[in-house]
Amino acid sequence: MIFKRFYFIIVFSFISLFSFGIQEDEKLNFIIVFADDMGYGDLGVFGNPTISTPNLDKMAFEGQKWTQFYSAAPVCTPSRAALLTGRLPVRSGMTSSKNKVLFPNSLNGLPSSEFTIAEKLKEIQYKTAIVGKWHLGHKKKYLPLNHGFDYYYGIPYSNDMDKINNNKYWAEYERNELNSKSYNVPLIENFDIIERPVDQTTITSRYTNKTIELINKFKDDRFFIYLSHNLPHIPLYASKEFLGKSKRGLYGDVIEEIDFGVGLIINELKKLNLDKKTVVVFTSDNGPWLVYKDHSGSAGLLRNGKGTTWEGGVRVPTIFWGANIKSGIIDDIGSTLDIYSTFLSISGVEQQKNVHIDGIDLSETLFKKEESKRKNMFFYNGDELYAARLGSFKLHLKTTDWFKEPKTHDPPLLFDLNVDPSEKFDISKDNSEKVEEILNLIELHNSKLIRGKDQLKDRF
Amino acid sequence: MIFKRFYFIIVFSFISLFSFGIQEDEKLNFIIVFADDMGYGDLGVFGNPTISTPNLDKMAFEGQKWTQFYSAAPVCTPSRAALLTGRLPVRSGMTSSKNKVLFPNSLNGLPSSEFTIAEKLKEIQYKTAIVGKWHLGHKKKYLPLNHGFDYYYGIPYSNDMDKINNNKYWAEYERNELNSKSYNVPLIENFDIIERPVDQTTITSRYTNKTIELINKFKDDRFFIYLSHNLPHIPLYASKEFLGKSKRGLYGDVIEEIDFGVGLIINELKKLNLDKKTVVVFTSDNGPWLVYKDHSGSAGLLRNGKGTTWEGGVRVPTIFWGANIKSGIIDDIGSTLDIYSTFLSISGVEQQKNVHIDGIDLSETLFKKEESKRKNMFFYNGDELYAARLGSFKLHLKTTDWFKEPKTHDPPLLFDLNVDPSEKFDISKDNSEKVEEILNLIELHNSKLIRGKDQLKDRF
Repeated sequence: MIFKRFYFIIVFSFISLFSFGIQEDEKLNFIIVFADDMGYGDLGVFGNPTISTPNLDKMAFEGQKWTQFYSAAPVCTPSRAALLTGRLPVRSGMTSSKNKVLFPNSLNGLPSSEFTIAEKLKEIQYKTAIVGKWHLGHKKKYLPLNHGFDYYYGIPYSNDMDKINNNKYWAEYERNELNSKSYNVPLIENFDIIERPVDQTTITSRYTNKTIELINKFKDDRFFIYLSHNLPHIPLYASKEFLGKSKRGLYGDVIEEIDFGVGLIINELKKLNLDKKTVVVFTSDNGPWLVYKDHSGSAGLLRNGKGTTWEGGVRVPTIFWGANIKSGIIDDIGSTLDIYSTFLSISGVEQQKNVHIDGIDLSETLFKKEESKRKNMFFYNGDELYAARLGSFKLHLKTTDWFKEPKTHDPPLLFDLNVDPSEKFDISKDNSEKVEEILNLIELHNSKLIRGKDQLKDRF
Repeated sequence: MIFKRFYFIIVFSFISLFSFGIQEDEKLNFIIVFADDMGYGDLGVFGNPTISTPNLDKMAFEGQKWTQFYSAAPVCTPSRAALLTGRLPVRSGMTSSKNKVLFPNSLNGLPSSEFTIAEKLKEIQYKTAIVGKWHLGHKKKYLPLNHGFDYYYGIPYSNDMDKINNNKYWAEYERNELNSKSYNVPLIENFDIIERPVDQTTITSRYTNKTIELINKFKDDRFFIYLSHNLPHIPLYASKEFLGKSKRGLYGDVIEEIDFGVGLIINELKKLNLDKKTVVVFTSDNGPWLVYKDHSGSAGLLRNGKGTTWEGGVRVPTIFWGANIKSGIIDDIGSTLDIYSTFLSISGVEQQKNVHIDGIDLSETLFKKEESKRKNMFFYNGDELYAARLGSFKLHLKTTDWFKEPKTHDPPLLFDLNVDPSEKFDISKDNSEKVEEILNLIELHNSKLIRGKDQLKDRF
């Protein structure tokens, strides 16, 4: 018996060592779950009192909860372009001084000169799919299948577009007239419209189910699935099973349905023994759209929301889970820009050459809990740099509220975000050297920046 | 083999049933860890980005995280009186229109006609001790040993009292002159001053160590230990091991030292096999004292802080852990008022007769995850009712900022806290019936209220 037990221990240790070796080398699967306009304070584990998110809470506890993770832009289109390319939107031209995002009458989209994560992973035979919101151009040449994805199922832009009347959101909502038919939004499969207007009440669960279907389809290959929920962007819809379920009201119903879907996906990965072979990241494209009151999320303790370069607009609740990610809370800086570089590094693909990549490889933080290599962050509103962070300090040259006249700050405002995450206490006066240092960093950044041609300005 | 396995299952089931029976009946130990001026948003698991609280986070994950838990008052003395007696401070006279709290020159304290949790648990031979801040009267007749405690070790009031000069806090702090000697605060053991001024830099770790010493002393009996930290109330101090450790600055150092201490206590309980026999509750006496800027905590997404009846002043980050508490997030209402009733119920002691108890027994929520029985909450500022909550709705008759002139609201403000925890959207106009209902509740409360004699007004 004793001998047997000893033998077991040896074999087990050997297997452990061996698996560890494999994990280091083995190419992993990747899933990005992207929420739309979800705020920093909308998950239980990020401090929400009444939105119940047990699945995401558990992911955060088992995986890594990143508390200072940034989207690359405070609105939709540029944020998504940056996520997929690892490049600031101002480089790809996917941001503009004129239009904040792409609209149904926009003529352009993500240029084919840009390389997405999907495109790069296809170089080593990954299966790739996007389920959900694209918002990087809905003309055929800009759709996902022309950007490295094998399969597309989703709404090509925001769920409040193609409005068939001019009624205000709240008026229509309060008259109980709000339904998917007010928004003549198409559902696309690959290149074809398969439903229009799409029934938005079931869209979240359909996205989840489609993702699970794809995991099963791809399970014997390596895969990258980008699940990009259209919600909780307004108009808000939840399926029958979730409607009226959350104490937080309709907005909570929506988040709880997304959370439930994430739980199903995690369970599926476990069932298929893919949980140790798949990196799942959950995050949001930007902060909450505060003008929609209780149909907007909460930025928690952060200042302001979507459309601004205050922390509430750009810091997003982020969880990495799966594979051999070392569990814990990471309060270093990270960004959606880094997902490109990190996934490529993990799978051993070289980053695209001859283009400037802003992403930073976070894999040593994920797998070894080493300090994040990201030390700074540039915050653009449209195509203009409004603020920059270096280490703990953020300098605001300009600030704005949603669609309000921006305010120029001369001297700029300085906040120590580690100490003052709510950006309450301007410390610029007592830290002129730090102000100078960040101004120099900005100058260097500007001097090297090559701006892409504005892809958002042209609309018919 | 099969028979043996079957036999095991039977024995095991029997043991389980048996233990369950015991758990229901067995008297448990109780530990309250009370923080001073800690805000709703100061723990990782309540959404803080840079204060590292792995021990409390783990407790919340293993136990119950209560997201709508209220202190009974927005300042120190009344909050503590209510915690120990299960009675609104306006009944015991431990709140006042004149003084918010007791001061070193106050003449009175908690009347001997009041019964504390310690006093009640002594009826069934519990060992009882308080380590830390008392603040219910420092004259001999009001000290803990005259209120049911067997042992006392701590500072009898706030750590910023007995100031030996008139320097402003910030001026002194920034000149690097702030040290414990500026505050001639005594450390008391039982009835005797054993150190004055107390060295506050080590006070948090000394409180933790003393608590662990007492657990070991009491381990063969049933016990109730009330660990009442003087920090993170200003002036802030941390021991050498924690100073400069937190990204959040000195305030973070202080919280991280408290968290570390909680971890030591939990480990000790596990080591002694008392974790399944002990209920530990962690909470705070009121919200963050916002006027102290980054030396104050954060109320997270809640509005305002200490000294106000906005949510930021009264909702406190609360965790129940240990024994057979069913893990999960509880977003029902609870209050520090209920700890008296809950502990007494668990240990089978009848509540004190002939006094009105405001506490509600939460044990069925703790052990069976049933809905909380608390459906309303009355919010006093001093001896005046400012607001009341019924179900999801909170009605403000009056509001104030810290030491600002209060504002009367006629008609009152109404917020749906489940949907709008930040109290942003007054919905009184569209909900006149709800306003009426809460006004009636308040009238009923007022009509039955018997006010205690003001114990705080007299100072020499």
